[in-house]
Amino acid sequence: MSRVYNFSAGPAALPEEVLKSAASEMLDYAGSGMSVLEMSHRSKEYQAVFDDTEATLRRVLSIPEGYDVLFLQGGATLEFAGIPMNLMRTGSADYLVTGNFAKKAWQEAKKYGTANVYASSEDTSFDRIPELAGLHPSADASYVYICQNNTIFGTMFTDLPETDGKPLVADVSSCFLSRPLDVERYGLIYAGAQKNAGPAGVTVLIVRHDLVEDGPALDCCPTYLDYKKQAKAGSMLNTPNTFGIYLCGKVFHWVEETGGLEAMERRNWEKVGLLYDYLDQSELFKGTAQPESRSIANVTFRTPTPELDAEFVSGAKLKGIVGVKGHRLVGGMRASCYNAVPREGIEALVAYMGEFERANA
Amino acid sequence: MSRVYNFSAGPAALPEEVLKSAASEMLDYAGSGMSVLEMSHRSKEYQAVFDDTEATLRRVLSIPEGYDVLFLQGGATLEFAGIPMNLMRTGSADYLVTGNFAKKAWQEAKKYGTANVYASSEDTSFDRIPELAGLHPSADASYVYICQNNTIFGTMFTDLPETDGKPLVADVSSCFLSRPLDVERYGLIYAGAQKNAGPAGVTVLIVRHDLVEDGPALDCCPTYLDYKKQAKAGSMLNTPNTFGIYLCGKVFHWVEETGGLEAMERRNWEKVGLLYDYLDQSELFKGTAQPESRSIANVTFRTPTPELDAEFVSGAKLKGIVGVKGHRLVGGMRASCYNAVPREGIEALVAYMGEFERANA
Repeated sequence: MSRVYNFSAGPAALPEEVLKSAASEMLDYAGSGMSVLEMSHRSKEYQAVFDDTEATLRRVLSIPEGYDVLFLQGGATLEFAGIPMNLMRTGSADYLVTGNFAKKAWQEAKKYGTANVYASSEDTSFDRIPELAGLHPSADASYVYICQNNTIFGTMFTDLPETDGKPLVADVSSCFLSRPLDVERYGLIYAGAQKNAGPAGVTVLIVRHDLVEDGPALDCCPTYLDYKKQAKAGSMLNTPNTFGIYLCGKVFHWVEETGGLEAMERRNWEKVGLLYDYLDQSELFKGTAQPESRSIANVTFRTPTPELDAEFVSGAKLKGIVGVKGHRLVGGMRASCYNAVPREGIEALVAYMGEFERANA
Repeated sequence: MSRVYNFSAGPAALPEEVLKSAASEMLDYAGSGMSVLEMSHRSKEYQAVFDDTEATLRRVLSIPEGYDVLFLQGGATLEFAGIPMNLMRTGSADYLVTGNFAKKAWQEAKKYGTANVYASSEDTSFDRIPELAGLHPSADASYVYICQNNTIFGTMFTDLPETDGKPLVADVSSCFLSRPLDVERYGLIYAGAQKNAGPAGVTVLIVRHDLVEDGPALDCCPTYLDYKKQAKAGSMLNTPNTFGIYLCGKVFHWVEETGGLEAMERRNWEKVGLLYDYLDQSELFKGTAQPESRSIANVTFRTPTPELDAEFVSGAKLKGIVGVKGHRLVGGMRASCYNAVPREGIEALVAYMGEFERANA
């Protein structure tokens, strides 16, 4: 068996230790005589797994008191509706339209009220985070929404927008656990787990309790999406994705044991730095995100032609470098360098880029 | 390692073959150099897993053309909202209130329109399926809704209610794949996978295409729950629970390879028959479901006192018989005898019941 270097944007590479541990417990978790997959979510054994998962995340991310942590299903797409249904108390909210998923969230919110555009970078094909200086939210906005890292376009917010005290809501899916996050600056943070936190099928949602204590803003909110009820039920209003949450717990422990978020951030910037440095001096490859907006996780680039891009992607696969094809909206290539992608993977990719460039000079 | 006999109501026992196979592929699926957990849902490799899962289910359940098969997230609780949002085109629907989950579905539907009670067994504490002879749906009902097997109370519909040609919508979570199902008699069937089909975190939803081809009935329907869009996107409007679906595929193959649904039904009735036969002659234990309404999967029973029930449950655990505590709404015991619970498990349980009865005579 030979493991590949997996640059997929999500689902994505997981730490080998996590996979080995899960495999070893597959028929018998901790002497219970059953797999976690078979365990009642109402059992003491599973509750212990769940509680440890949440407690580990709270330590790793320094989540303050007063924030609820939910483990939900349905991915970011379901929360595009869940967020306005829960939080749009004034009938309006402001959205920063900085990529495909930010735009989808904005469009979904329009079903439930007025969704204003706070700022947009659509006119430059989402190649940057828009200039934020001097901008303020609409007076009646219930919240300000950002997608903090734009997976498809390879851009990331470094500064956060001014919210004038309104809650900031952030989809952090592709930068979650890539680096420390000051949770107190946000009203709600959520992430599809399938990038840095675990497998597909789990959404981690962290919300300031006072924002949901009056229940959902809209009557049409499905009970499943009622953040207050889910918080009260400890994410077990109904059966959660039990195995997915257990795997997230293993990943959270791995993050903690390999140095925590400061170490992740240092390693991740070093990793993507190898790629950005190569791109900045290359005559064949060109980074597609503006340098000041570059992501810590998703590095997007291309050659001069789609044909050469395709050749690069298929050549990479032969070298055990997979998942580097860009999203169809951007074309070219994308290397998603999440926590579990080892530095050697990026070194192998950069070495291959060098070879490819020399061969096509 | 010693595997227990697991009678949990869900998440529940899975075939050991399935677990072993998943463990063996955990670091490298079919020479891909990665786990299914790490695989992009947009990759050819994963699409092949997904397509095989759907095709196997279509064979096993003889799903006719004209029905869409969706693999969703959020469990039955989310579909309690999704169903009226998609199908309640006349502003009303009829519900058979035969247990806890049927009642929850009915209550959720009231958020979205008029939810009539077609029939109820709440007055007898849900110990039976109500008499259906002579009943008809309301003239303006968009659909008729049942929970076909009531997990908590151990009852099951054998005859289906008269719908006068309106679509029948059925939550079949706890009898899904326990026996053959005539899909054409239903407009929509759905099941949380965590009983007979796989792990928690996957909802299998089978819907007659013509019922959804005009899109959701209600504008407030989240895009994630738009059955038409999900069908068009092959359940990949966003990232599905990729690993959960892969495990469902393994379970579907196991069902097919061990005889299909006819064999499941024969084995399951034989298994629960051992328990029902014991209960019918016992002087200590008493079945709580009326005999004519008994479930093929969930056998509910009790002793004369809660103290003796508790003693029975803790004594069972010492013998490697777990998950037999009844739901808090009913008390007593419940043995969920899904496909993957071997006959030897039920034999061990019946033997223990005999010992316990002699000791407490």
